[in-house]
Amino acid sequence: MTDTLTSLRRRHLLAGSAGALAAAGLGSWSTSAVAQAKPLPPYATWKDADSLIVHSANTIETRRSAFGSSGITPTDRLYVRNNLPAPDAAIVAHPDVWEIAIEGVQHPRTLQLAQLKALGLETVTIVLQCSGNGRGYFPSKPSGTPWQVGAAGCVVWSGVPVRAVVEALGGVNPGMPYMTGTGGEKLPDGIDPKSVVVERSLPIKALGDALLAWELNGAPIPLAHGGPLRLIVPGYTGVNNIKYIKRLAFTPAESQAKIMAHGYRMTPPGAKADPSQASVLEMSIKSWINAPHGDAGTVASGRSQIRGVAFAGTQGVKRVEVSIDGGKSWREARFFGANQGKYAWREFVLPVDLAPGSYTIASRATDNAGNVQPEQRVENTAGYNNNSWADHALKITVA
Amino acid sequence: MTDTLTSLRRRHLLAGSAGALAAAGLGSWSTSAVAQAKPLPPYATWKDADSLIVHSANTIETRRSAFGSSGITPTDRLYVRNNLPAPDAAIVAHPDVWEIAIEGVQHPRTLQLAQLKALGLETVTIVLQCSGNGRGYFPSKPSGTPWQVGAAGCVVWSGVPVRAVVEALGGVNPGMPYMTGTGGEKLPDGIDPKSVVVERSLPIKALGDALLAWELNGAPIPLAHGGPLRLIVPGYTGVNNIKYIKRLAFTPAESQAKIMAHGYRMTPPGAKADPSQASVLEMSIKSWINAPHGDAGTVASGRSQIRGVAFAGTQGVKRVEVSIDGGKSWREARFFGANQGKYAWREFVLPVDLAPGSYTIASRATDNAGNVQPEQRVENTAGYNNNSWADHALKITVA
Repeated sequence: MTDTLTSLRRRHLLAGSAGALAAAGLGSWSTSAVAQAKPLPPYATWKDADSLIVHSANTIETRRSAFGSSGITPTDRLYVRNNLPAPDAAIVAHPDVWEIAIEGVQHPRTLQLAQLKALGLETVTIVLQCSGNGRGYFPSKPSGTPWQVGAAGCVVWSGVPVRAVVEALGGVNPGMPYMTGTGGEKLPDGIDPKSVVVERSLPIKALGDALLAWELNGAPIPLAHGGPLRLIVPGYTGVNNIKYIKRLAFTPAESQAKIMAHGYRMTPPGAKADPSQASVLEMSIKSWINAPHGDAGTVASGRSQIRGVAFAGTQGVKRVEVSIDGGKSWREARFFGANQGKYAWREFVLPVDLAPGSYTIASRATDNAGNVQPEQRVENTAGYNNNSWADHALKITVA
Repeated sequence: MTDTLTSLRRRHLLAGSAGALAAAGLGSWSTSAVAQAKPLPPYATWKDADSLIVHSANTIETRRSAFGSSGITPTDRLYVRNNLPAPDAAIVAHPDVWEIAIEGVQHPRTLQLAQLKALGLETVTIVLQCSGNGRGYFPSKPSGTPWQVGAAGCVVWSGVPVRAVVEALGGVNPGMPYMTGTGGEKLPDGIDPKSVVVERSLPIKALGDALLAWELNGAPIPLAHGGPLRLIVPGYTGVNNIKYIKRLAFTPAESQAKIMAHGYRMTPPGAKADPSQASVLEMSIKSWINAPHGDAGTVASGRSQIRGVAFAGTQGVKRVEVSIDGGKSWREARFFGANQGKYAWREFVLPVDLAPGSYTIASRATDNAGNVQPEQRVENTAGYNNNSWADHALKITVA
């Protein structure tokens, strides 16, 4: 597997890898994505190109084979999904003067990042996952980036708890059931700001473990990931973790921004998106296998270590089963590495002895509330929330 | 504090920072190290230069101000200390063919890295710390790199447990109280190999949680950190974690290599190093403060968050106290972030309200066996194992 990974890391072998992908039957979009090998956009040139699939300047996916087994996803391998072009890099050059307006509290005010740092400090390890991760497995081919597994990562954020900020400002005003975050992206001229602004409203219970974060994996948050300041809402899909946050408001109603009212809704096939449909918020129980093997290649016969990751939104993951026969039979896998809390993923491993042949390996996780990862995805027009174990299974050839 | 960090990240301001260091009374060697601003050596150009102090091509220190609060030290900010020049980079281009000889077991043999990967998988978070970290605080000015706090980091390793390898080869032969690892560095011609080879013998109990690791912080181990394969012995100082490991032997006696017999010994002042003196093995209880502030600058008056890290070799850390008056009085700090196991460090924080003036802030940790971090270092000729809380205290000016 690592030979495969190594070869994928060498760009001059990319054409060969694409061929191997096609041979493994892993879908034509992926093959073409590899063959294209688009360059990293200017704000992300520091990323590890060989670990990533560049779909577009605003959508960059981690290769399945580039997920290690160490719990944390290195920042230079972490996916990127921006709804708007990133702001000017000048905003991360002087992080301490970044300003955020806190509204809907007893004493609303604008605070500088340096002031936030004095108010408190907490660190949380979370799975950050795009709402559309796994969209590439929808046969309906929804519009949007056809992510497979790599619009996700497990990362560490440090910042001030939102509850500490709220407390310092006298508490949330009565009658405010929503916490609404607004991104600081520059909006295009000449169109209604509500049609493009990144603004999301979450149930106020999300305040509990939310952070206003300035650090990612031990370093200041890079521009590509929402620095200098990002709202982190553990257990909620990526879009709810507002980048370049410039306003955090406790509000009586959901935002009327398009991205909230009509975007990120679980819209049934054939219907149009509207605010009555469920919004994409907390993540569901999910797991997938990363080895052997990731993107391509064959596996040597004999002893092999099947490994992958499992997570469960706000519930935490309890167990993972692995199948090598496409789901006919299952064996319990072992968790390894540190348990970094209920919002992090757990690494799992199952040693198996494989004779030559073809296998479909799959994983199925169960969360602490008893929810079992389903075999089938929930169909929806935009391809959100795919946690089907069948869709995420890997076909491998053992030689 | 982050303004300071930001300014330190800008190389054109280094001269100014050095001046600030001197003003803060932080010692002349450090000031000169900053002023020199040596370039990163070729095998480490990918590192974050502004987070590091390059002492020499083989000794690179993390700035105190560059330690974040997220538990893990990013690989590009992690210190480097090599006893010999790094091998050719070709060895990390094809990691799976790297070979290691396993000796002193029932069925000794040479294994390729790819074969190790099939044998098992474990992940451990550890503090990696050079034996000489804190040497810069010895008034005796021992020869060797004058590290302050930055020859240490908390990182995640993945690999196969040594016990799984041993088991697969029939177990350790009787009468072998030592586990001896040999590094794969190219040795200079024309001199006795024993005088330069990196070879260390550890008590066999160290086998328990040891790994043969191929992954660091979620990516293949870079050459600078011992890739493609490194022996990881949780709780033991850096030198015992053999880089580029090519031989792991269970032996009846300690290695006669100079680095074992005469190097890394706790030699009393005035004496010469010899094998009867204690070898530098397990780390002792230690902590230090990283903010506010790290390398330089003044702190704004009012509320401030004092934070740092604490660890305890193989025992795990139980509590940390913080003093703002140079050790006259102490208050218990709060741990935050995930507990990544007994070999990792814990981040601690204490909110304080500071009036303008001068303060000496210190931290003092206690491990799970009841050992308290001492006020004084143990004097020794080479400046090893400095865990004095007084030496690691920070003088700050609050304006």
